[in-house]
Amino acid sequence: MAFKKNLASSKDDNISDWYTEVISKGNLIHYSNIKGFMSFLPNGWKIWQLIKKELTKEFDQRDILELCLPSLISQNDFLLEKKHLEGFAPELFIVTKTSNETEKYILRPTSEIAFCNLWRETLRNYRQLPIKHNQWTSVFRVEKNTRPFLRNSEFFWHEIHSCFETEEQSNDFAVDIWKLYQRFIKDILCIPLVAGEKTEAEKFAGAKTTYTVETIMPDGQALQSATSHNLSQNFSKAFDIRYQTKNNDYQNVFSMSAGVSTRIIGAIIMTHGDDDGLVFPTKVAPYHISLNCIFDDTNQELNAKLKELANKYSQKYRVHLNVNKDSTGEIIKNSQLRGDCCVLLMGPNDLKKNEIVFIDRITKQKQFINLDHLDQKLEELFSTFDQKLYQKAKAVFETKVDFAQTFEEFEQKIASGKFVRVFYCNEDLYEKQIKEKTGASSRCIIKYLDEQTQERCFISNKKAKVEIYFARSY
Amino acid sequence: MAFKKNLASSKDDNISDWYTEVISKGNLIHYSNIKGFMSFLPNGWKIWQLIKKELTKEFDQRDILELCLPSLISQNDFLLEKKHLEGFAPELFIVTKTSNETEKYILRPTSEIAFCNLWRETLRNYRQLPIKHNQWTSVFRVEKNTRPFLRNSEFFWHEIHSCFETEEQSNDFAVDIWKLYQRFIKDILCIPLVAGEKTEAEKFAGAKTTYTVETIMPDGQALQSATSHNLSQNFSKAFDIRYQTKNNDYQNVFSMSAGVSTRIIGAIIMTHGDDDGLVFPTKVAPYHISLNCIFDDTNQELNAKLKELANKYSQKYRVHLNVNKDSTGEIIKNSQLRGDCCVLLMGPNDLKKNEIVFIDRITKQKQFINLDHLDQKLEELFSTFDQKLYQKAKAVFETKVDFAQTFEEFEQKIASGKFVRVFYCNEDLYEKQIKEKTGASSRCIIKYLDEQTQERCFISNKKAKVEIYFARSY
Repeated sequence: MAFKKNLASSKDDNISDWYTEVISKGNLIHYSNIKGFMSFLPNGWKIWQLIKKELTKEFDQRDILELCLPSLISQNDFLLEKKHLEGFAPELFIVTKTSNETEKYILRPTSEIAFCNLWRETLRNYRQLPIKHNQWTSVFRVEKNTRPFLRNSEFFWHEIHSCFETEEQSNDFAVDIWKLYQRFIKDILCIPLVAGEKTEAEKFAGAKTTYTVETIMPDGQALQSATSHNLSQNFSKAFDIRYQTKNNDYQNVFSMSAGVSTRIIGAIIMTHGDDDGLVFPTKVAPYHISLNCIFDDTNQELNAKLKELANKYSQKYRVHLNVNKDSTGEIIKNSQLRGDCCVLLMGPNDLKKNEIVFIDRITKQKQFINLDHLDQKLEELFSTFDQKLYQKAKAVFETKVDFAQTFEEFEQKIASGKFVRVFYCNEDLYEKQIKEKTGASSRCIIKYLDEQTQERCFISNKKAKVEIYFARSY
Repeated sequence: MAFKKNLASSKDDNISDWYTEVISKGNLIHYSNIKGFMSFLPNGWKIWQLIKKELTKEFDQRDILELCLPSLISQNDFLLEKKHLEGFAPELFIVTKTSNETEKYILRPTSEIAFCNLWRETLRNYRQLPIKHNQWTSVFRVEKNTRPFLRNSEFFWHEIHSCFETEEQSNDFAVDIWKLYQRFIKDILCIPLVAGEKTEAEKFAGAKTTYTVETIMPDGQALQSATSHNLSQNFSKAFDIRYQTKNNDYQNVFSMSAGVSTRIIGAIIMTHGDDDGLVFPTKVAPYHISLNCIFDDTNQELNAKLKELANKYSQKYRVHLNVNKDSTGEIIKNSQLRGDCCVLLMGPNDLKKNEIVFIDRITKQKQFINLDHLDQKLEELFSTFDQKLYQKAKAVFETKVDFAQTFEEFEQKIASGKFVRVFYCNEDLYEKQIKEKTGASSRCIIKYLDEQTQERCFISNKKAKVEIYFARSY
């Protein structure tokens, strides 16, 4: 027997329509009247705050200091940077004062310039190193095709910018943060991933190496979910960031930068959501438990009991005590759309029987639980919830990841929505051809092959240099 | 015997120079190359994060939901609002895209418009009320004379925007938040204050009533430190924000807004700082304890002991373990400039004697404390620290607050830097005259007098309507 789903659209049939509907009905955001700009509603903002909390724990352990730089960059500084950032040229928002239209500023699209200016003016000697800075801000890029979370003209991110005495330290820290991102995305967000290095063509302009974490959406498209860059001395030389060494000479620092943005919320939604609404891993779920009175909202004894339960479970879980007079069906529907991990319902009869109705967000099955066993039931749910989400996502992931030996095979697999592993000669020229012919871009190098390899490149038939993933991407 | 102070300038002699120096040497901010824009360095940003933490506790208790609205407002919306906001006309930053210069946006100077748009589009019926929203953001206003924290072109604040079914609810909530601000500023920030209502001339354009908290800087100038506005139906009528009532008819909501900005950090600095540097109340001090090795930084036993102490006290206090090789004098100086609540120093001999050198930020006296008594010593310091700061500030405050019976007396007291209480007829006309003649503006009405009063207005000699403070202000 098939039940009617909460959403009109189907994730399997049309993920684009589904994505729009699940976000709108889940009350995460509200579109503003400016293209690409949106309000984060309380539940949407809560997810970002929980992500911030989880990552901040990790940053604190690494003595990364939080600060906040200005939103505007002078246009002159930006033109200076641009020379060193060929390739990174998003369309920008220009700012002027009403009183003075000749002085122009840029709404920051990223903050390399601001950090470089700060360091150049404050760094004196080796005793100040390493510097590990981080800020949580929004950045601005004009976008033609916008989608909530996935591509916004204003989006939120954190950006780590650090500098060091040696290249090794800088690279090690970039790798450390990259590994942290992998654990975060896999263990906290329960999203399967592929991690590796970007090719020359795809790396951040100005970086020596870009380490990336790629996730795969259910339609097979890749989502670049977190990146960490070893910038070597590229920026410190361009911006003249020097310090006095122990030996009293002057040297340019080695720097790195890294970031995760609100795009990752798009990945959470697309990975875990279903045709009944949003689903969230426990660490970033706005609400763990929706607790509701049904049938008789004037029953004082019942309300007292629910308040008691809300107080009790708030010690451990994020509990939402619902005082609306919705019907039971509406309550369950709204809770599922919102992505609460479970919904609990209690009416006068349940109270008499010392029972509560329990519906978890994964199985969606209704169970009557004796209140004496509720602690245990919740323990069970929350101790296995994330693992179940990951396994479900991993099963989908496995159907998307594929391998191609030849270009013909590659073309066909990309066209059918796969994330395709190949052996590749790693020459820029072919990347352009591949993109033009298939729409796929290189996502990440997972292995450098040694000279002795027998593998041939899937497109050039030259000796392969790397093992790499290609896919279409968001 | 007079010791040399850490700062070159003196707070008593020239508070303006002192303020600039104490901020710069205390490493709170870094000036950017755009007028009125600055970077919050880690310690400066930490203060704002601690303020956020304290206020958020209060907001959570009131079920105020945190969200985040876009940084840009369309210029058309702004022109619509402007009609209803005559009097609130800060100079603005205009934003365009590089590709399309005809569409214009405004960098938000405040978010009334954005909230009104959101509510109009999402509010349906009485069951959604009350709505209590809050966001922590930066806002943008072109300023001619800028000073760090006190007047910036980009500054940070929180802004509560709420709406209700009745005027009474809206006003009660505005008053509740205003009282919360008073407790926060007095008890947490240890700053003496005067609280009351703004006059018609000084209230927020669009507000029915503006409740304000005014603090008095050591030069006698007032700093408007927190405001809460009952907006009645002024905005909801202008922006057509209606909901369906229980009786199925439609009504405009009653709304309020309130906010505290990074200006308050300027008030903390000016109130508590001294000629040796910054001083912070314990709840917002970036560091409680600076823990330092002196004389022999290669002594493993000593370093192990300091690490042990750092770990132990980090459970309860914000501890900074200093690994720099500065001289003892430099360590103490830098700690005092930075505003650590106390600095602890230990050398090899101290370790042998099981002692530590203890210097608190208020008395600045050096004491040798047996490690067995350190817990107790810290308890004593931190249990009385805030009270001592408040008492010190209150003593200065008392010398600034004054009363004038006549305009002559008033003029002379304003000129000598007082915060002057008067009886006043409360007619707009006189406020302009007072401002022109003395530079003072009305700060807050502390009492409405009844019809039977015998008091006469200090300037018009008419029957007085209110008891009110006037002062020059930042």
